[in-house]
Amino acid sequence: MIGDFRNCITLINFLYGKSLYFPCIFCPQTQQPPLTCIIMSKGTVVLAYSGGLDTSCILVWLKEEGYDVITYLANIGQVEDFDAAKKKAESLGAKKVFIEDLRAEFVEEFIWPSVQASAIYEDRYLLGTSVARPCIARRQIQIARQEGAQYVSHGATGKGNDQIRFELTCYALYPEVQIIAPWRIPEFYNRFVGRKDLMEYAEKNGIPVPVTPKAPWSMDANLMHISYESGILENPKSHAPAGLYLMTKSPEDAPNSPDVLEIEFKKGVPIKVTHVKEGKSKDTPLDIFSYLNEMGGRHGVGRIDIVENRFIGMKSRGIYETPGGTILYHAHLDIETFTMDREVRRIKQGLGVKFAEMLYNGFWYSPECEFVRHCIDKSQERVEGKVQLSVFKGQVYILGRESPKSLYNEDLVSMDVQGDYDPCDASGFIKINAVRLREHHRLQGEHRSKH
Amino acid sequence: MIGDFRNCITLINFLYGKSLYFPCIFCPQTQQPPLTCIIMSKGTVVLAYSGGLDTSCILVWLKEEGYDVITYLANIGQVEDFDAAKKKAESLGAKKVFIEDLRAEFVEEFIWPSVQASAIYEDRYLLGTSVARPCIARRQIQIARQEGAQYVSHGATGKGNDQIRFELTCYALYPEVQIIAPWRIPEFYNRFVGRKDLMEYAEKNGIPVPVTPKAPWSMDANLMHISYESGILENPKSHAPAGLYLMTKSPEDAPNSPDVLEIEFKKGVPIKVTHVKEGKSKDTPLDIFSYLNEMGGRHGVGRIDIVENRFIGMKSRGIYETPGGTILYHAHLDIETFTMDREVRRIKQGLGVKFAEMLYNGFWYSPECEFVRHCIDKSQERVEGKVQLSVFKGQVYILGRESPKSLYNEDLVSMDVQGDYDPCDASGFIKINAVRLREHHRLQGEHRSKH
Amino acid sequence: MIGDFRNCITLINFLYGKSLYFPCIFCPQTQQPPLTCIIMSKGTVVLAYSGGLDTSCILVWLKEEGYDVITYLANIGQVEDFDAAKKKAESLGAKKVFIEDLRAEFVEEFIWPSVQASAIYEDRYLLGTSVARPCIARRQIQIARQEGAQYVSHGATGKGNDQIRFELTCYALYPEVQIIAPWRIPEFYNRFVGRKDLMEYAEKNGIPVPVTPKAPWSMDANLMHISYESGILENPKSHAPAGLYLMTKSPEDAPNSPDVLEIEFKKGVPIKVTHVKEGKSKDTPLDIFSYLNEMGGRHGVGRIDIVENRFIGMKSRGIYETPGGTILYHAHLDIETFTMDREVRRIKQGLGVKFAEMLYNGFWYSPECEFVRHCIDKSQERVEGKVQLSVFKGQVYILGRESPKSLYNEDLVSMDVQGDYDPCDASGFIKINAVRLREHHRLQGEHRSKH
Amino acid sequence: MIGDFRNCITLINFLYGKSLYFPCIFCPQTQQPPLTCIIMSKGTVVLAYSGGLDTSCILVWLKEEGYDVITYLANIGQVEDFDAAKKKAESLGAKKVFIEDLRAEFVEEFIWPSVQASAIYEDRYLLGTSVARPCIARRQIQIARQEGAQYVSHGATGKGNDQIRFELTCYALYPEVQIIAPWRIPEFYNRFVGRKDLMEYAEKNGIPVPVTPKAPWSMDANLMHISYESGILENPKSHAPAGLYLMTKSPEDAPNSPDVLEIEFKKGVPIKVTHVKEGKSKDTPLDIFSYLNEMGGRHGVGRIDIVENRFIGMKSRGIYETPGGTILYHAHLDIETFTMDREVRRIKQGLGVKFAEMLYNGFWYSPECEFVRHCIDKSQERVEGKVQLSVFKGQVYILGRESPKSLYNEDLVSMDVQGDYDPCDASGFIKINAVRLREHHRLQGEHRSKH
Repeated sequence: MIGDFRNCITLINFLYGKSLYFPCIFCPQTQQPPLTCIIMSKGTVVLAYSGGLDTSCILVWLKEEGYDVITYLANIGQVEDFDAAKKKAESLGAKKVFIEDLRAEFVEEFIWPSVQASAIYEDRYLLGTSVARPCIARRQIQIARQEGAQYVSHGATGKGNDQIRFELTCYALYPEVQIIAPWRIPEFYNRFVGRKDLMEYAEKNGIPVPVTPKAPWSMDANLMHISYESGILENPKSHAPAGLYLMTKSPEDAPNSPDVLEIEFKKGVPIKVTHVKEGKSKDTPLDIFSYLNEMGGRHGVGRIDIVENRFIGMKSRGIYETPGGTILYHAHLDIETFTMDREVRRIKQGLGVKFAEMLYNGFWYSPECEFVRHCIDKSQERVEGKVQLSVFKGQVYILGRESPKSLYNEDLVSMDVQGDYDPCDASGFIKINAVRLREHHRLQGEHRSKH
Repeated sequence: MIGDFRNCITLINFLYGKSLYFPCIFCPQTQQPPLTCIIMSKGTVVLAYSGGLDTSCILVWLKEEGYDVITYLANIGQVEDFDAAKKKAESLGAKKVFIEDLRAEFVEEFIWPSVQASAIYEDRYLLGTSVARPCIARRQIQIARQEGAQYVSHGATGKGNDQIRFELTCYALYPEVQIIAPWRIPEFYNRFVGRKDLMEYAEKNGIPVPVTPKAPWSMDANLMHISYESGILENPKSHAPAGLYLMTKSPEDAPNSPDVLEIEFKKGVPIKVTHVKEGKSKDTPLDIFSYLNEMGGRHGVGRIDIVENRFIGMKSRGIYETPGGTILYHAHLDIETFTMDREVRRIKQGLGVKFAEMLYNGFWYSPECEFVRHCIDKSQERVEGKVQLSVFKGQVYILGRESPKSLYNEDLVSMDVQGDYDPCDASGFIKINAVRLREHHRLQGEHRSKH
Repeated sequence: MIGDFRNCITLINFLYGKSLYFPCIFCPQTQQPPLTCIIMSKGTVVLAYSGGLDTSCILVWLKEEGYDVITYLANIGQVEDFDAAKKKAESLGAKKVFIEDLRAEFVEEFIWPSVQASAIYEDRYLLGTSVARPCIARRQIQIARQEGAQYVSHGATGKGNDQIRFELTCYALYPEVQIIAPWRIPEFYNRFVGRKDLMEYAEKNGIPVPVTPKAPWSMDANLMHISYESGILENPKSHAPAGLYLMTKSPEDAPNSPDVLEIEFKKGVPIKVTHVKEGKSKDTPLDIFSYLNEMGGRHGVGRIDIVENRFIGMKSRGIYETPGGTILYHAHLDIETFTMDREVRRIKQGLGVKFAEMLYNGFWYSPECEFVRHCIDKSQERVEGKVQLSVFKGQVYILGRESPKSLYNEDLVSMDVQGDYDPCDASGFIKINAVRLREHHRLQGEHRSKH
Repeated sequence: MIGDFRNCITLINFLYGKSLYFPCIFCPQTQQPPLTCIIMSKGTVVLAYSGGLDTSCILVWLKEEGYDVITYLANIGQVEDFDAAKKKAESLGAKKVFIEDLRAEFVEEFIWPSVQASAIYEDRYLLGTSVARPCIARRQIQIARQEGAQYVSHGATGKGNDQIRFELTCYALYPEVQIIAPWRIPEFYNRFVGRKDLMEYAEKNGIPVPVTPKAPWSMDANLMHISYESGILENPKSHAPAGLYLMTKSPEDAPNSPDVLEIEFKKGVPIKVTHVKEGKSKDTPLDIFSYLNEMGGRHGVGRIDIVENRFIGMKSRGIYETPGGTILYHAHLDIETFTMDREVRRIKQGLGVKFAEMLYNGFWYSPECEFVRHCIDKSQERVEGKVQLSVFKGQVYILGRESPKSLYNEDLVSMDVQGDYDPCDASGFIKINAVRLREHHRLQGEHRSKH
């Protein structure tokens, strides 16, 4: 690394942002022409490391660029050999390796608020990837602060949403941090144009190369969902291959009889799930969510194939499976409508739509998202009760609900008893509501009759 | 008109609004007791007649009250013996009987705009009943005008939404109309407290009495859906009985392999549906919708069990099956997101939520709903293309989509080619988006450090 | 209660809702003509009493109808001879007379939340009447409960908003209450068709008759504003008479030099106002608001002449003067934008619009308004600082502001120093924002070229 | 320019975006090492030229960088010596000079839609700068296309909104265009750090240097407004200097009696303005707007001092004077509320808020803004009639209004006649609206009583 002219550019690049337009005649450190300057460690970077080919190459490349690298791998419920990843990172020269089990906090602090919000992006996507990003990045920033690192790095691509979600979280929680996003650095992405380049680099640098061929799409997994995109899925017309899904059974192969569950809510979050027939129940957030994943997965619940609008302005096709999240979405919607006043619900619905957009766009740690989370949480104070539902062949069916705090009043609504209600009032209600409509008609009529 | 006891009532009615309903009065004109009055016709009323027990009793009661009664029965796709209903009405003394086939206009002028709007009430209800009401009432008003009737009447209850939907349409289209809603007239509803009273009245008045026992719930059917409510369904906890559904097969009994359909849209409405394997296709609105009902029905698509918020302020439990509507909702959502700009979609989504509320509350014929329909229609100009989907065991799965007008750009979004996109731009994008977040953090930090 | 003719009416009233109003009935209990009934008290009614001709007549009429009448007069800052009103009520037979000074709670619990919300109806009306209604009715209900009264009554007309605001508050806080609104009871309003009838009735019943002629408009005054409507103002084209305004000087006659004030806010409400030149300051809510009224009034601030949309669906013309409220609206807006994050503000702005509608329509005591007030209050946590402004000739001019919690960052925004900001980032920001726009253009171009 | 190594970098820079990270060993054009390569014209750039020091320096710098420069100066109503600017540009080597009078189209195509929308940013700013940008940039793009220029350039700073507004318009209308924003190019902004550097450069390059000292703030003027910001105004606490305003008289110095105007609207835009006393009137868009500017200016109307939130996430302080726009805002609001249905207005109000944000952020030429403009235009179909108002001492007072299409119904609303309205209906209306509130209370009560 000594005396590398290109490193000066890179250095300047990192120091001054991407604003490289220096002719770089002299090294800004040594005030010497490039060839004579000596480069020392640029500092410490905490790299979000997956154990895969990409981030392994990034690890080595960052070292090559003069950084001390700490790797960090979050366990948010994905299937992964964490020990192997640890060893791999160490063998590739990571100064320190963090493997963090974030599953419980992921459920309680990120998924639960999303359930309260009925967060759904563009009417369909339950935000399984989006919601994991601030959780992962928050811990990364904690490690960076604790380890005195000025840099964080990740392997997210330059066209996606995840780079934004990671980085906005980083900037929000650690405003001075410097972010190294290799897939946005021309020096990096022009060098590693295809997978072949990464493979060659890996071989040259002692990085273990995957032996099984890569699936012709990319995928992201966590406790909440698995997403599939890119590769052959980029053609929006072509159907998803049958064997794609890992978290849910195909509805065709799912059991021929439903499982009936009862979910109990308090303050808008589940506090217990019971298998009605088997009597089995779960009552911690992580257990509840994992059990719903198991049940939903068994019955093929929560598969969608959509085209969505990314924050950066392009449309992309994504396939998602969200078994437990889908069950909860429906159950929560039901108990919420059962217990919440109509007009509160209407306002809360609007806030939920905004929350989903913020979450999708990476603004979890923003003043507006904190504000909206507070408001939504407030709205959930009395969202309490039990919902019975069945899961069967890819579908969730709400069967019934009860609540100690419901605004449902069986006497009031009954067709058989009058309750505390005078039908005559409805006449006045309707006639007053018609005042505007009749005026509108009158005016149109007047207008029409003149022509 | 002097001395007409019933006319006095009518007169009082006109003078004081609906506040009459006392049998025991002196005529305010003659200052004579009622018996000395001479009875003449109060005028003509167009009654929305279903052929069932309730509206048959209303027909006779209206005659008894001194009205000439014209019955009107709309065919909006419900299963019904229209000839029998006609004969029944005639035999009960209807001055004139109208049976009107509104199915085609129901699909084209009411369901299609709802599909364009992705109209869904409280995130779940596809508004099958709501959307039929303005269609039915519009024709009723046309008949009333054409026949010179000053009154319209219906059998809707005093606690429901339908009375509002009917009457707001009537007032909007015929502001001077007088509405007779017997279930809100104490004289009527105190006389007919239970079904037994209606049965007795029917027997006394030669109204054919239904021989099969009534289902322990009420039901409303049209081309778009069947709704079930009241009776044993009023307990929100109890599950719907298995045999309830008439329009859809139980998912458990549905075929074990999916049907794959291709729906072609233009301007946001379907113009063709094709069964991919069988090659069969439909291309008129009514045929398309009927075929989707058949397909959805076969596979148990579109069942929901919800508690919803009525316009009059109470919560009610409803069970709905909307086979074709559910398929269209999903297919339209897919092609719309595929072809519509993200931000237009966001605004349109908000308008759609408003449209659904208007529709639910009975404001189809209102200036605001006309305005919103216009705007939504405008937004659909380029919502065009084909969606492939499968229906299976109660679920609709989107499989793929294509469009000549899609904003989806495979090159732009591809992970494998760069397209007309510079990843470096994302850095600036993220950093500028972070300006606010970093400022917020800075201020919090400053504030924190002072305490 | 047997034989009480009026009780029969009441009974019928309870059974059939408001549909009674016929003097000429047989008692449904005794089946006897009215004259044989024995009259007893129907119960106690708390009447919102203004001391004026209308409510004095209502007082006497209620007694005539068989009620025990408690009068209640709220001091919410209007100019009034409260002692005289007390004596008058007593002399007219009120069982008990309450004169309640609600000024402090009116400011703190009703005006302050409206200031936080920037509550403004249809972009112009600062809701001075609306905000007083729940304050007045709340106390009325407290008195009714405390005195064991089953009835409340008021003199609001049947076409206005106030009847709704009063009564929704009553029903919300005392669901079982019975409301007597004489101006909606045909027996009453048909008897008192014009002012002349009231005058005659007053003379007959020993009610002191006003000696000064009534202004040719009606008016409603409280601490926050005076409204003028009806009478000659009903013609929307005719200009308001010069002498109309009571709370503000005409701008033409106002001083020729401004007064400069500094208002200090904390949590979105004013905690101090200082006259910059005179050094004079006020720091309790009521003093602050009164002083702002004085200052605004002196300079003719806060006059508007509008046509607005009533809740009952008609348009009405109103003229308002809101001196202090107008100053606060502008000052609060300024300090809020100065201290609140942009996106929080955007959401809060939407909530404020909703709040204003609720307030206007009478839903202060509703679950949705409580929810929205909570959210808005939350948004105000850091709305803190000082605003300097001048009032002059009908106008409020913001001159400057400062805050210990402002998100305004002089270095960041400066054109002279770079601050923690890289202009290059803006390029990426713009280009990413342009992705959608370029795609849209591309597609239009393609489409165009094909035709 | 021959053989300039730095130019190669710049060239690559411009060709490939800002992605400069080339070591630049050989010139990509000549394949020679930098020192030997000869640079030819890089192409043509259309520069938005103001005639001032900044853009004059940019002009020369662009030439220095190897571009052919076409200057373009839009007349959008600012006070300017266009001839002098033309001569100056020519003398500095502009290949071609365009001076374009856009005033009429600015009013009709940009200001009028903003008036229809009641466009106001963050409740205060009438968007006078924002609305001019797409108008200016559209013509610039037309010239670029017509002259075959691949580049456009402007002198907007890197921290402001205007760069975004200009460039989003450019990208939207000419997606392939390359934009040169010198104030975001380090090579440029590091060279011209202060005004002194520009002055020196100007002197060296024969650019006439302004003789009068620059005001200690920057300013932007057009037909709609003048904005003042930066410099001494950056301190949000300090009051604006008295002599700042150029377009409006100080209210203190304004005439002591009002001018009364009548503005006639059709489809939501003014078609005529009449001075009521003088009888003088104007009826073309440009004349109307200019006359309103004159009247407003004479009376000191439309001055505001605000802190606003820029799109790039920082708060800035701006002072604006918008005389004619302020009058129109108030007049239009009045006639709109007078003629538009309440619920249409509510929806339109929401669209107007969105429109203002789009406009502020530079998205005039976006699919969403086109959509919203269409919707708003539709809403204005019947916004027609005359508004009388007075302007006096900084304030606009609405005096009265009339319309052939008003929904205002004097009989309906009158307190003196009943009109087609039954007060009894209001009872039912209120009681049905109270159903929810009473249920809410009931539940709270139940809940409370249990604790």
